[in-house]
Amino acid sequence: MTTMAPVRIGMIGGGQGAFIGGVHRIAAGLDGQARVVAGALSSTPQRAIESGQALGLETSRNYPTWQAMLERESTLPSHERIDCVSIVTPNHVHFEPALAFTNAGFNIICDKPLVHTTEQAKTLVNAVAKHNTVFAVTYNYSGYPMVKHARALVRDGTIGDIRKVVVEYNQGWLANNLESSGQKQASWRTNPAQSGAGGAIGDIGSHAEQLTSYITGLSITHICADLTTFVEGRLLDDDANLLLRFNNGARGVLIASQIEIGHENDLRIRIHGSKGSVLWSQEEPNALSVRIEGEAEQIHRRGNGYLSDAAKGVTRLPAGHPEAFFEAFANVYANAFKAIRAGKGGLEAARVFDFPGVDDGARGVHFIERTVASSKSEHKWTAMDAAK
Amino acid sequence: MTTMAPVRIGMIGGGQGAFIGGVHRIAAGLDGQARVVAGALSSTPQRAIESGQALGLETSRNYPTWQAMLERESTLPSHERIDCVSIVTPNHVHFEPALAFTNAGFNIICDKPLVHTTEQAKTLVNAVAKHNTVFAVTYNYSGYPMVKHARALVRDGTIGDIRKVVVEYNQGWLANNLESSGQKQASWRTNPAQSGAGGAIGDIGSHAEQLTSYITGLSITHICADLTTFVEGRLLDDDANLLLRFNNGARGVLIASQIEIGHENDLRIRIHGSKGSVLWSQEEPNALSVRIEGEAEQIHRRGNGYLSDAAKGVTRLPAGHPEAFFEAFANVYANAFKAIRAGKGGLEAARVFDFPGVDDGARGVHFIERTVASSKSEHKWTAMDAAK
Amino acid sequence: MTTMAPVRIGMIGGGQGAFIGGVHRIAAGLDGQARVVAGALSSTPQRAIESGQALGLETSRNYPTWQAMLERESTLPSHERIDCVSIVTPNHVHFEPALAFTNAGFNIICDKPLVHTTEQAKTLVNAVAKHNTVFAVTYNYSGYPMVKHARALVRDGTIGDIRKVVVEYNQGWLANNLESSGQKQASWRTNPAQSGAGGAIGDIGSHAEQLTSYITGLSITHICADLTTFVEGRLLDDDANLLLRFNNGARGVLIASQIEIGHENDLRIRIHGSKGSVLWSQEEPNALSVRIEGEAEQIHRRGNGYLSDAAKGVTRLPAGHPEAFFEAFANVYANAFKAIRAGKGGLEAARVFDFPGVDDGARGVHFIERTVASSKSEHKWTAMDAAK
Amino acid sequence: MTTMAPVRIGMIGGGQGAFIGGVHRIAAGLDGQARVVAGALSSTPQRAIESGQALGLETSRNYPTWQAMLERESTLPSHERIDCVSIVTPNHVHFEPALAFTNAGFNIICDKPLVHTTEQAKTLVNAVAKHNTVFAVTYNYSGYPMVKHARALVRDGTIGDIRKVVVEYNQGWLANNLESSGQKQASWRTNPAQSGAGGAIGDIGSHAEQLTSYITGLSITHICADLTTFVEGRLLDDDANLLLRFNNGARGVLIASQIEIGHENDLRIRIHGSKGSVLWSQEEPNALSVRIEGEAEQIHRRGNGYLSDAAKGVTRLPAGHPEAFFEAFANVYANAFKAIRAGKGGLEAARVFDFPGVDDGARGVHFIERTVASSKSEHKWTAMDAAK
Repeated sequence: MTTMAPVRIGMIGGGQGAFIGGVHRIAAGLDGQARVVAGALSSTPQRAIESGQALGLETSRNYPTWQAMLERESTLPSHERIDCVSIVTPNHVHFEPALAFTNAGFNIICDKPLVHTTEQAKTLVNAVAKHNTVFAVTYNYSGYPMVKHARALVRDGTIGDIRKVVVEYNQGWLANNLESSGQKQASWRTNPAQSGAGGAIGDIGSHAEQLTSYITGLSITHICADLTTFVEGRLLDDDANLLLRFNNGARGVLIASQIEIGHENDLRIRIHGSKGSVLWSQEEPNALSVRIEGEAEQIHRRGNGYLSDAAKGVTRLPAGHPEAFFEAFANVYANAFKAIRAGKGGLEAARVFDFPGVDDGARGVHFIERTVASSKSEHKWTAMDAAK
Repeated sequence: MTTMAPVRIGMIGGGQGAFIGGVHRIAAGLDGQARVVAGALSSTPQRAIESGQALGLETSRNYPTWQAMLERESTLPSHERIDCVSIVTPNHVHFEPALAFTNAGFNIICDKPLVHTTEQAKTLVNAVAKHNTVFAVTYNYSGYPMVKHARALVRDGTIGDIRKVVVEYNQGWLANNLESSGQKQASWRTNPAQSGAGGAIGDIGSHAEQLTSYITGLSITHICADLTTFVEGRLLDDDANLLLRFNNGARGVLIASQIEIGHENDLRIRIHGSKGSVLWSQEEPNALSVRIEGEAEQIHRRGNGYLSDAAKGVTRLPAGHPEAFFEAFANVYANAFKAIRAGKGGLEAARVFDFPGVDDGARGVHFIERTVASSKSEHKWTAMDAAK
Repeated sequence: MTTMAPVRIGMIGGGQGAFIGGVHRIAAGLDGQARVVAGALSSTPQRAIESGQALGLETSRNYPTWQAMLERESTLPSHERIDCVSIVTPNHVHFEPALAFTNAGFNIICDKPLVHTTEQAKTLVNAVAKHNTVFAVTYNYSGYPMVKHARALVRDGTIGDIRKVVVEYNQGWLANNLESSGQKQASWRTNPAQSGAGGAIGDIGSHAEQLTSYITGLSITHICADLTTFVEGRLLDDDANLLLRFNNGARGVLIASQIEIGHENDLRIRIHGSKGSVLWSQEEPNALSVRIEGEAEQIHRRGNGYLSDAAKGVTRLPAGHPEAFFEAFANVYANAFKAIRAGKGGLEAARVFDFPGVDDGARGVHFIERTVASSKSEHKWTAMDAAK
Repeated sequence: MTTMAPVRIGMIGGGQGAFIGGVHRIAAGLDGQARVVAGALSSTPQRAIESGQALGLETSRNYPTWQAMLERESTLPSHERIDCVSIVTPNHVHFEPALAFTNAGFNIICDKPLVHTTEQAKTLVNAVAKHNTVFAVTYNYSGYPMVKHARALVRDGTIGDIRKVVVEYNQGWLANNLESSGQKQASWRTNPAQSGAGGAIGDIGSHAEQLTSYITGLSITHICADLTTFVEGRLLDDDANLLLRFNNGARGVLIASQIEIGHENDLRIRIHGSKGSVLWSQEEPNALSVRIEGEAEQIHRRGNGYLSDAAKGVTRLPAGHPEAFFEAFANVYANAFKAIRAGKGGLEAARVFDFPGVDDGARGVHFIERTVASSKSEHKWTAMDAAK
């Protein structure tokens, strides 16, 4: 409970027929500390207006375009003006509004992957550094309490030196040509003009990369990728299998697939160290398996007193009362809101307030680029740093 | 998305230090269709006011007592007045405000168990019938999509005639004398003056009874109960084991315990019929095991196209993106809101709009009473209908 | 590996069409330390002979009846004579051969439930005490390593004082009238003349009782039973639900059912103490969940160094190489063989060598009797000791 | 039950201190249709003799060396002579006795991996083809009923065209320098002179390869391997991660690791096709997950009527009575015994009687060789057929 006035959000995208926009709204509003007060909810002005009406936006702040929102909100006094922009459009409509609003000094919460190219990403990173704004990227899975607990255990040495990471993001919903049916989610995700150079590797592989980075703190140095398109006529990969090497010598395997029938949203990770392992699965997010050499497996569960502070600080319900996707998503927003309320932006804010920042988003874009390059290469290893 | 104005809620209880009040607020507000605009958030006026301030209530609607809220809200014009009252106090403070607000024509959403005695419950049922108000009881577990799916399968004959129900609500958090530490949740739950005649059987056994009734549609006719208090000095049962008989001849076993260490909030139910079985567990709420004789076990998962409309209609995320406790709780609110918006109250509203009604709450109170009676009896079977 | 000559077994029952006889033969022979050298494999002499031929028994020791086996084997020199008799017939053919062979000084390994009546059981117990023979009852589930580990943890105080036992034996294979199809296993199990007074409670409830006794060391003092026959025309219970009270004040729930469709052979037990709980399930027998208050759940797995000696001593494979039903069954035989080789019989042998003895079998028969009595009683509690 | 005389086995290796020899003896003898009657149980003659004595071998057939066994057994009349040789030595002692006994016309059951080099393997394959003997390789995991069921489902088109295989063999027991403690299993497995060129990839990766081949019938065409040795001073890989390509265009990921702490013997495989997927895990071997697009997940369980004949034909217990490692191992022996009894050898016998043959063993050796080559290569893909 708080006396603080709600954070005012202006949303770009998320109109009728969209999926993720509604998720962002629930996540942002979960704790009652934010409200969507303005929006340009579709790239089609007419649809934007209708969507805003359906959502109950005031007419004056129900904008036909994000440009209109930028123009007018910039003129409002600071106590009325939106505190941040939430960008929930398909990937190809991230860069322009993100840059324009950042340059105008607005804070941003943007869906992933951040943008299409490393160059765009660098431009954004520089803009955030320059304007000292808050910029969060909704890698929502890192918001789960037991992910934060895994991170705490790994970082405090519980499992020793990290030797190996196996991270998988298994889905099956694109095993057939769903996009030809006009299903909106399938359509833009399989369209390079909207999604960028990566299919499965971009849409979900980027989550796997970020989850790995978030928990371990390691950097991928080399990638060996095999990207495949199984569904005829599709223009982007729908299956990605990667070998990885990390900066400390650890090895990795990364799987991102959308053609594994019977897998729903099966993001899972295991980290193996010299003293033990931790294992987590998104579909059973309230548990973390902790396995120390010579000891019995332990199942750590959200909401218990024996957990790390990192896990305890981001949970809303007692043990056994399961939390799930929305709450994890809300945790990303909640931490970004802390930075916004504190007025502390720039690249450090993501570290200080524990949310995925613009540089994490940039690293993700670069990871997609290099993976696509690796897949086309006959060399086994493609360096993340192209100079190497 | 909706153009409808938010439902205005006045909350009783749920101030600083409370747990369930915050849950109600998140649940009520999850879909952005309701707002707590008034409150009498504690039975201590000073604390009530402070809690309301922390929550950001307008001063004029931040009431020191529920009586003050009743008095003033009754004078407001209907487009300002609260649309419903949410009662989230300990059990002993349900009856009086529930009756007073119902008699004044207000809709009510009340936590469970409803009241302390069957007599009180009958009074409330009659008041609701007379004033034709909406009255929901937050048996939140029946809001889970896969519970509604189980209900749909059972009701459509998928498992044949029901023969047996095994329902358990296993917890371990009261295995020792937590109440002596002053922990608020433990204190009132183990205090007969606040909780009523039932300890574990009242707090969680009532959920088990309601879940059984909700899924099967059967009535318990006879109870054979063994209630025990394991923790020294405690005045209420902390362990309850029951044999049940149902009106169709089915048998049942009901376990409700708070001393089973290592069980967190392990509500689970299995229904066995002449053709098959369904099994559900609250801690893994997105799945339902369906077992038809001669066939392989099927795991039905939330968010899939093959589910019943009952399950599909109350879900917010695609398969594999887990939903959990808050969403189920929100589903009880959402259906009550439908009735409130439709202006349709009385005893039928609970059936029409699918939420637990005042009569479900009354049945629960009666179940607790008869279980306590059975436990004291040397006869094997105690009839639910005392006349039998 | 051992230089010891194999134990010579004479088998009664287990001929063509039988199920459990083959299980006994594999279990007895698993470690290469026993051999079936004689048999009276069916109650039909012709079938007995044919079965013995199929099994490769020498003609001279392929007996038409157990009486013939008793007569001739008694005349053989001790180094040729069978070392023990394995009785694997339906229940009604346990008592006579068991008594006759015991009185003739033979060691016995007998399937469960031991006999039909408490009186028969007492006669056998007295005979074993008098002749100082080895008498094992194949309550095979207590042979599992992780059951022995559970026992060790419970006995050494790891979970504190035992407060509650929930033991279930859930099956579904008799949910319909399988016996009318002539299926042999179903036929005799549903026939009181062959099975005795108990149906599900006798066939599988007795296992649940023994497992409870074996792990906890507690005695049931009072029973409150509800036995039901769901399948029309069946003469014995196919569903049993019991409340229990133990000699230390602990409470219990025991479920034994053969009409719960989709349960295969789901024997499971949980023991709740003042400091923690242990949970085990026969269908995943290599794991034991150990839950200590305030700590994370531990999953103990067979084959690991951290286990009790009791578990380590009865395992044949490293961790992760699953052992299962046959190995547990073999452990009962192996310990009985130790007693036989040591020449130490009488009632203490079961305790010394850790196998279920004739007195355990007798207690099981009494448990069935008293449960049937309880089910017919209108009093809530039926004392195990009829005198109370 | 059978009238057939037991198969006579001569065992090479498996003396005191060995692990796998005892497993072979239990597996071979499980159904009572074979007996170890001769042996050269250690490469140290003295130890061989002592081990044979402990096992109860007749003195005349308790050989100091396999050469002695070959010499004398060859002279025995066929009704006394051993029917087959079971080779259970470390890998480096497979080739010589296997070739010598094959050339002498003996049938062979040999542990895996078959030999050290592709050249040796070819020699053996040619010998078997020439002498028309039975030669089985104990890839025991393909003996599991639910593996055979998976194979049946995949082969009959249930999951459509195979697109992807993910096969893992995760262990953690060599995460530290166990071999320096003198532990026998660790010592020879980490010694190239005894194990050959592969560490984890040889010991367990070869099982993963065979399981994949057995279920899918596909051939690996290209390998991209990253082999690592994490434990200092170790001479062989203890972690192997591979990308695979198959002859039908399918993709694969293969993980074989012995440094993943907390994994015991976690062999698991999932096969994804254009219509569905199957998933199996060795540590829960009685279940197979079957996932067809648009349908609920099905859990097929051993022992049920709805299974394929392939699964039904190799099971010994009813559903819910778990079978495990020994029974699967015994199934390899049982099928080899069928071929031996039928007197049908040569390369086709493995297909006709469904056991892993010498050519499967040869393919495994080649797989190890090419994986090691790939790991050293800077090219992404190494062809299985070196000519390509």
